Amino acid sequence: MSSDARPSVVLLSGGLDSTTVLAIAAAEAPVYALSFAYGQRHAVELACAARQAARFGARAHEVVDLRHMGRLVASATALIEGSAHAVPKGEPVDAADRIPITYVPARNTLFLSYALAWAEALGARDLWIGVNALDYSGYPDCRPEFIAAFEALANRATKAGVEGDLFRIRTPLLELTKAEIIARGVDLGVDYGDTVSCYAPVTAGDGDLPLACGACDSCQLRRRGFATAGVADPTRYVG
Amino acid sequence: MSSDARPSVVLLSGGLDSTTVLAIAAAEAPVYALSFAYGQRHAVELACAARQAARFGARAHEVVDLRHMGRLVASATALIEGSAHAVPKGEPVDAADRIPITYVPARNTLFLSYALAWAEALGARDLWIGVNALDYSGYPDCRPEFIAAFEALANRATKAGVEGDLFRIRTPLLELTKAEIIARGVDLGVDYGDTVSCYAPVTAGDGDLPLACGACDSCQLRRRGFATAGVADPTRYVG
Repeated sequence: MSSDARPSVVLLSGGLDSTTVLAIAAAEAPVYALSFAYGQRHAVELACAARQAARFGARAHEVVDLRHMGRLVASATALIEGSAHAVPKGEPVDAADRIPITYVPARNTLFLSYALAWAEALGARDLWIGVNALDYSGYPDCRPEFIAAFEALANRATKAGVEGDLFRIRTPLLELTKAEIIARGVDLGVDYGDTVSCYAPVTAGDGDLPLACGACDSCQLRRRGFATAGVADPTRYVG
Repeated sequence: MSSDARPSVVLLSGGLDSTTVLAIAAAEAPVYALSFAYGQRHAVELACAARQAARFGARAHEVVDLRHMGRLVASATALIEGSAHAVPKGEPVDAADRIPITYVPARNTLFLSYALAWAEALGARDLWIGVNALDYSGYPDCRPEFIAAFEALANRATKAGVEGDLFRIRTPLLELTKAEIIARGVDLGVDYGDTVSCYAPVTAGDGDLPLACGACDSCQLRRRGFATAGVADPTRYVG
C-alpha cells in the first residue's frame, strides 16, 4: 500500500465478508473503518470489528450508534434485539425465491449514506462494502442493481460528485462464492477465528467469543464456505 | 384527510419549508414526522418541529440523534456547532454558481435513508421532503436529479420496492418560489412565527424563540419570500 494513496472508507461489521473486504482495501490504500451499533442480536461482532480494524492499520474506527433507528424498524425484522420475530434456524438457504425475516429495512442504504458523508469530509472517494450476490440471503440491498443505484445517487447527492470528483462503491466480493471469499482472505492473512457471522450467537460463559448457533442462514453459508474452500473452520459452533 | 389513507413519513426540520410540507402532507394522509439532531447551530428549530408535528396531528414525531455523524463531517461544513467555519452573512444569494460552506455532506441522503427505513417498517410509501430548486442555496441534494436518484435507489434497496410496492419521494415545493411556498402555507394555516430558518440564530434571552440574524442565506431567502408574497413576516430579526 502506498501511504500517500487517497484514503477510503470500509464498512466493517466484524463478520467474515467485511473483514475480508477490509484486508483487500487496506492492501490498496489507507482505510477508515465504519461500524454500526443498531441493536443487532450479534453485537459481539463489534468487538471483532475493532480488533480487525487495528490489525489492518485503519487510521480510525468509528462505531455509529443506530439503536434509535433499530427500535423504529424492529417490528419488521428478526435481526434486532427485542424483536418479536425469531431468527429462523435450520431452514434451507436459497437466495432466489424469498427475502427472509432477517432483512433489515434500508440497512445498507443507511450504512452507505453514513460512509458517503464521512468519505466526503475525509476526501475519500472509494466506499468499500462486503455485499455478495451468490452465497447470500436474498437481501435486496446486496444486489448489483442496488450498488449501481447507490453509486449514481452518491454522485448526484454530493458536492464532490457533482463537481466530477466521483465516488465509487467497491464490492470485491460481489461475484465470489463464500469459499472464494475465504480463500482470498486466507491469502491476505485474515484471522477468521476473530470474526462473527452468526445471527443468534450463544454466550460461551468463558469470556471468549460466543458460540455460533450453526443453524441460521449465516452459519449455514459460513460452514459450507469453509468446507468447500478446504480451509479448517475456526468457528466454535453450539452443535 | 381520510384516516384510513396509507400513512406517510415527513422530514421535518422545523423550518419554513418543511413545516409547509407537513401541512400539505397532513391534508392528504396520516403523517409520521421525522427530525434530526446533528449538532446544527440552529437546534432551536427542533422545538418548533415538535410543536408543528403536534399541531398537524402527526401520529408520532421522532428525533434521531445524528450528533456523532455531525462531528465526523464538521470539518467540511459551517452548519455544525463547533465547526471552524463561520456561517457567511450578508453575501448575495445566487444558487447557480457555487455550493456554499453551509452544505452538509450527504445530509439529505442520510435523512431520506432514515425516512425510508422507518417508512418500510410502518407500511408507509410516501416520503415527503421540502427541497426546493428555485430560492435555495445551491445544495446538490436539493435538485430534481438527486430526488430522482433517491427514488430509484429506494425501490432497489428495499423489500417493498423490489416486490413492486413502490416508494415515492414527494417534493411539493420543488418548483415553487419562496413566496409561493409561503402563500401555500398561509392557506393551510401554517403559523410561520413558530418556524426557524436562520442558520445562526441569536438567543433572545427572554425564553422566547431566538432572534434571526437576518443576514445568512437562509434569512435573506425568507425575508425576500415574505416581502414578495405580500405576507407580514412574523420573524424577529436582530437587524
